[in-house]
Amino acid sequence: MTHSAPTGREFPGTPMSAVLKMPAPARANLPGHRVLLGGDRKLRLDCGIEFGPFALAYQTYGTLNAQRSNAIMVCHALTGDQFVAEEHPVTGKAGWWATMVGPGRPLDTERYFIICANVLGGCMGTAGPMETNPATGRPYGLEFPVITVADMVRSQKMLIDHLGIERLFCVTGGSMGGMQVLQWAATYPDSVFCAVPIAAAARHSAQNIAFHEVGRQAIVADPDWCGGDYLNQGKRPQRGLAVARMAAHITYLSEAALHRKFGRSLQDRQKVTYGFDADFQVESYLRYQGSTFVDRFDANSYLYITRAMDYFDLAAEHGGVLSRAFAGSKVRFCLVSFTSDWLFPTKESRAVVHALNAAMANVSFVEIETDKGHDAFLLDEPELDKVLKGFLDGCADHAGLWRNGPER
Amino acid sequence: MTHSAPTGREFPGTPMSAVLKMPAPARANLPGHRVLLGGDRKLRLDCGIEFGPFALAYQTYGTLNAQRSNAIMVCHALTGDQFVAEEHPVTGKAGWWATMVGPGRPLDTERYFIICANVLGGCMGTAGPMETNPATGRPYGLEFPVITVADMVRSQKMLIDHLGIERLFCVTGGSMGGMQVLQWAATYPDSVFCAVPIAAAARHSAQNIAFHEVGRQAIVADPDWCGGDYLNQGKRPQRGLAVARMAAHITYLSEAALHRKFGRSLQDRQKVTYGFDADFQVESYLRYQGSTFVDRFDANSYLYITRAMDYFDLAAEHGGVLSRAFAGSKVRFCLVSFTSDWLFPTKESRAVVHALNAAMANVSFVEIETDKGHDAFLLDEPELDKVLKGFLDGCADHAGLWRNGPER
Repeated sequence: MTHSAPTGREFPGTPMSAVLKMPAPARANLPGHRVLLGGDRKLRLDCGIEFGPFALAYQTYGTLNAQRSNAIMVCHALTGDQFVAEEHPVTGKAGWWATMVGPGRPLDTERYFIICANVLGGCMGTAGPMETNPATGRPYGLEFPVITVADMVRSQKMLIDHLGIERLFCVTGGSMGGMQVLQWAATYPDSVFCAVPIAAAARHSAQNIAFHEVGRQAIVADPDWCGGDYLNQGKRPQRGLAVARMAAHITYLSEAALHRKFGRSLQDRQKVTYGFDADFQVESYLRYQGSTFVDRFDANSYLYITRAMDYFDLAAEHGGVLSRAFAGSKVRFCLVSFTSDWLFPTKESRAVVHALNAAMANVSFVEIETDKGHDAFLLDEPELDKVLKGFLDGCADHAGLWRNGPER
Repeated sequence: MTHSAPTGREFPGTPMSAVLKMPAPARANLPGHRVLLGGDRKLRLDCGIEFGPFALAYQTYGTLNAQRSNAIMVCHALTGDQFVAEEHPVTGKAGWWATMVGPGRPLDTERYFIICANVLGGCMGTAGPMETNPATGRPYGLEFPVITVADMVRSQKMLIDHLGIERLFCVTGGSMGGMQVLQWAATYPDSVFCAVPIAAAARHSAQNIAFHEVGRQAIVADPDWCGGDYLNQGKRPQRGLAVARMAAHITYLSEAALHRKFGRSLQDRQKVTYGFDADFQVESYLRYQGSTFVDRFDANSYLYITRAMDYFDLAAEHGGVLSRAFAGSKVRFCLVSFTSDWLFPTKESRAVVHALNAAMANVSFVEIETDKGHDAFLLDEPELDKVLKGFLDGCADHAGLWRNGPER
């Protein structure tokens, strides 16, 4: 990959000073790219702060073609990161969308150039509360500015400018990733050919804000949070973060999936113990989810990113009328929801579809029957693969993506 | 009220030594009755322990008739207590079922004698982890035995034996109260004329166990929990308990109710603050729910009672076949569920109805259309009032309750 007119400075493989303070040694030298953006022209955040220069860590898969027309921006969810389709450098697990991104997969790395950036406020190399505040030389903590989904997308736009990409062929992602997709289409309609928001919504609901608030309160209730200054004090609010993760994790699954997976089955025992050990498999599972999460995620990042999701309300930016966000849009949309997703239920996607219809936009909508809940977008869901592949193939034809040369 | 053949010793108004350690001075002398049960014949708990003597705190409303035939046992939910229809001695708020219990109300105190006992494991005067362990002279903490819904009901049966009541006219309650109702009907079918389980289930689902586990983990993650020994160490895990309450509270409401009540409305401000204060009304509301709860509830009681609910599985006691729990039952049942209740959804009540049908039991079932979620049973819900009043009137006729004399 080559690129002209870089507006940022690449420094791949740079150790993250703040990351070094964390117990997981694997974090010291994360694979992938890291670019310093906002040096010349700062990023104006929604909160009013002119931010920069700041680091954006990203990963790419596949090859950018000569026309720079085959790029797909994948936007990750709340606790996702840029390691979409490779072994995760901290957990050693497969990338979070390895089922979707790769040779011959719907986001075919033999045809497309896949980009995924760790979001602003994140903890995998992009500027966030864990990174060093240049003004103090210490981790930002709560001195990091509160960011929004629009800020995340602005930073990603700076990245594609840096990469010399005028228009993304596609922007896609699930959950908060889907929020970013909608924001991309609304803010930069000329820079997006097609958009696939999955299991998303145009605003965060009261119930979802409530669940986020529980998670945040669990974190700030942990004395090791130290008012947000834990990195400087050599501590980490692991218990609070684990509780936050456990509460959130329930919302990612469906009642049916939990029943199917665990029901009331006991964990390695014949009968209940009349105690507070994890008698039930579902308890053991949840505890595991909480305890492993804290090894890879930063508590303050969790506060910032959940806050960004809470603040997301695309209609509010347009006088309360969602269709205005897409007025005159030439972006081709494909929305996907899942029947058992109660965190971002189908009605939220349908509200976006109605707004797109009102804006005369080009939109497809698929509701996939599954009992896997919100997490379905991350799991092996053949119907989702088919929908994405079909939609992208059609859009690639319309875009004349392969017209000017061989596919590869 | 008079009663013969007392099997326990009444000591109303006795200060609860352990309660005195709590900051709320109002707790020192709770109104209502308190009886010492299990002195002669101990209570055999499901965990195998022979328990007693133990205190049961209870409250009554109305007058027991000469035939002792007009008693209704009201069973309270997870965080409820015996103060059904009067100002709560700690919070000063109206009783939790003041809409339902009182003169002229569905549970008419001019006709019925209403009994409600604080459940075993509770924290309002009944034996629980906050009470003094006679073996050590200190609060039980985690030395209190793990109890079950069946244990709660056994202790209530000892109470009505003590009161000289052979058969309850009715047993009713919502949520965990409804679990107790089902257990009453299954264990003591000859001691119950009619049963009204509201918003209940015959077993706790995997999702509900998961939510309880989050709450428990929030409590035990609080350093002030002190391994359960906080009362002896002069501490209270208020932050953890508040987080547990916040998480649970979301499950008591419906998404629609949260949207109707709060939506994305901001709390006393025109726009978001780009910070972590409670910008949204729903956040402020949740924080309030958490902070007020800790003034009236004990964290260890929360652990014990959620555990009792997790363990509840009526079919499991009968070889996995729920209908066997009600074989040959002459109890008249009326089940009530609410359309927007996702914690104890209609399908759970329906499963009980199917089992009762299979057992040839006498059963009515009403699903009430409401957006108030699980909490609907506690709220002003005229349809619920009508259903209860109609069912009780009919059952009173069948029982010949007023045949032998005037209603009062």
